[in-house]
Amino acid sequence: MEKNPVTTLDAIRELTQSFPGPDEEAMAAARLREPQLTKPKGSLGRLEEIAEWLAGWQGKHPAQINLPRTIIFAGSHGITSQNVSAFPPEVNQQMISNFQNGGAAINQICKVFDIELKVMEAALEIPTRDFSREPAMDDGDCAEAVAFGMSGPDVGVDVLCIGEMGIGNTTASAAICHALYGGEAADWVGPGTGIEGKELDNKIRIVRESVILHKAVLVDGLEILRCLGGREMAAICGAIIAARLSRIPVLLDGYVTCAAAATLHSLDAYALDHCMVAHVSAEPGHRHLLEKINKIPLFDFGMRLGEGSGAALAVGILRSAVACHNGMATFEEATVTKKS
Amino acid sequence: MEKNPVTTLDAIRELTQSFPGPDEEAMAAARLREPQLTKPKGSLGRLEEIAEWLAGWQGKHPAQINLPRTIIFAGSHGITSQNVSAFPPEVNQQMISNFQNGGAAINQICKVFDIELKVMEAALEIPTRDFSREPAMDDGDCAEAVAFGMSGPDVGVDVLCIGEMGIGNTTASAAICHALYGGEAADWVGPGTGIEGKELDNKIRIVRESVILHKAVLVDGLEILRCLGGREMAAICGAIIAARLSRIPVLLDGYVTCAAAATLHSLDAYALDHCMVAHVSAEPGHRHLLEKINKIPLFDFGMRLGEGSGAALAVGILRSAVACHNGMATFEEATVTKKS
Repeated sequence: MEKNPVTTLDAIRELTQSFPGPDEEAMAAARLREPQLTKPKGSLGRLEEIAEWLAGWQGKHPAQINLPRTIIFAGSHGITSQNVSAFPPEVNQQMISNFQNGGAAINQICKVFDIELKVMEAALEIPTRDFSREPAMDDGDCAEAVAFGMSGPDVGVDVLCIGEMGIGNTTASAAICHALYGGEAADWVGPGTGIEGKELDNKIRIVRESVILHKAVLVDGLEILRCLGGREMAAICGAIIAARLSRIPVLLDGYVTCAAAATLHSLDAYALDHCMVAHVSAEPGHRHLLEKINKIPLFDFGMRLGEGSGAALAVGILRSAVACHNGMATFEEATVTKKS
Repeated sequence: MEKNPVTTLDAIRELTQSFPGPDEEAMAAARLREPQLTKPKGSLGRLEEIAEWLAGWQGKHPAQINLPRTIIFAGSHGITSQNVSAFPPEVNQQMISNFQNGGAAINQICKVFDIELKVMEAALEIPTRDFSREPAMDDGDCAEAVAFGMSGPDVGVDVLCIGEMGIGNTTASAAICHALYGGEAADWVGPGTGIEGKELDNKIRIVRESVILHKAVLVDGLEILRCLGGREMAAICGAIIAARLSRIPVLLDGYVTCAAAATLHSLDAYALDHCMVAHVSAEPGHRHLLEKINKIPLFDFGMRLGEGSGAALAVGILRSAVACHNGMATFEEATVTKKS
């Protein structure tokens, strides 16, 4: 991928205006092959749509999955000083070690589906500012994090699973969603890693007051990302942008990943067309958010871990869709009688 | 597995009365390990339940998936003479060849997840009788087909995916469900491989009138199976029984597989506790049926192919559940700080 000289959020705004669409020829080729395969028309349901979607966004038919990659973007959040999480911020670095040592859930799932795992620390040693007091990032910081994320999806990767890790980032996600879509702060706030009762009430209050505090400058998705997000969330936006430009279909994971993605969606309603949402998380805001960004998740297992765990789990489904589309015999090849 | 001398339906009724329960010790061991793993408690949602369920029904902790097998039971149905299917009955034998040559959807999905595929023809050359005129099978025939299915899950298999193929068998399934659960015939009838309009109306009429015709003898699930089912459906019951006795957890596929399984459920509400339903099919009766047998499917992709395609697709999810449960580091091993 050509390195994009992204140093300001304006440069990113511009980039999102020139997103390529899907490859119509590749999609047409998929649509032509599908009804020839030895099965009743439409009987593979969403697997058929996936095969076509992958062809369109990989820009080739048949689509292939030879090098799926999961990237975990990690960031640390100043908002943790407001007691919004069940785990202390030092867990960030501990979990990075856990990823590197192969001990986390995502390591196991990536092994099952033969997915490459990459951990990208978005300046993990430097927390963003506490957004209940001041903007989390300035323009240059945020743009730098986006550019960092853009370096994630190398050429050759053919499906990108995007996940994250960052103590405090469900609070940032709730604030972003509340800023983007309104409603009550409570609609967007959930237990995250496991808070409840008074601590949950405090998290709701922080989200409500923070959105009010920054209201005047929250003029678009990227300003919302800058004021309320985290570096890993900006990096997620970068990865989504780079994947679009490099023709890599994306699997988005849970609430945090989708909240980051939503800031791009708010700039351009087509910005996430190359992205599929793997699952709907148990974090209650995720379901509302998916309605706002018009995505139907592949499954609902009540997961709420992050790390890209849901996205990676969906790779088996994509592999199956591709295997069926590419590997099945046609009625003619198998001399099976077609529908009467 | 010891061969069971099943030659009458009464012998099967008796078998279902002595089903073993899950291994409580193995499940307790799973529940003990789960909260030690490096993730917020409960954050893997249904994957956690699956790991415990597998341990319970494999009768060991940790559960393992080393030899998953898909069995496609194939049967041919006399009811096809009533013009209930979009495909002619000769497709049965053609699809068997397609399975053997590796050209069907199920072959591709089994390859993706490294699942052994076995095709078992339940006397495919001899159609059952036309159940709109007479019982599909007599007692001995039906018991023989059950016994045949019991030979499917060999020792060593650690997850069994059950699927089927048989032109006409969604009509049999609808009749079984209508007989088991009442309602209107139309509630249970769908397009199958793709009929609509007048032919769909005809299929509904056949189902309604057939259930009325046999009403007097439909005294339990096995009589319903015998009068309205097919040999592949009886064999599915046999495989479910044998899996229970051999401690093999089962993934059930779509409408036909679940309709067969429902006849066992009607004998004993716990008979399917070692079975998970992989997906909810687009065949509309399946969703109602799952409510009746109290099963929550893993996913809904609008599939309606049979062949065990949905069940096999779920193996990746089971493998992930096992991999996370068995392979993740504990908080202690990874020196990650626990929830504050």
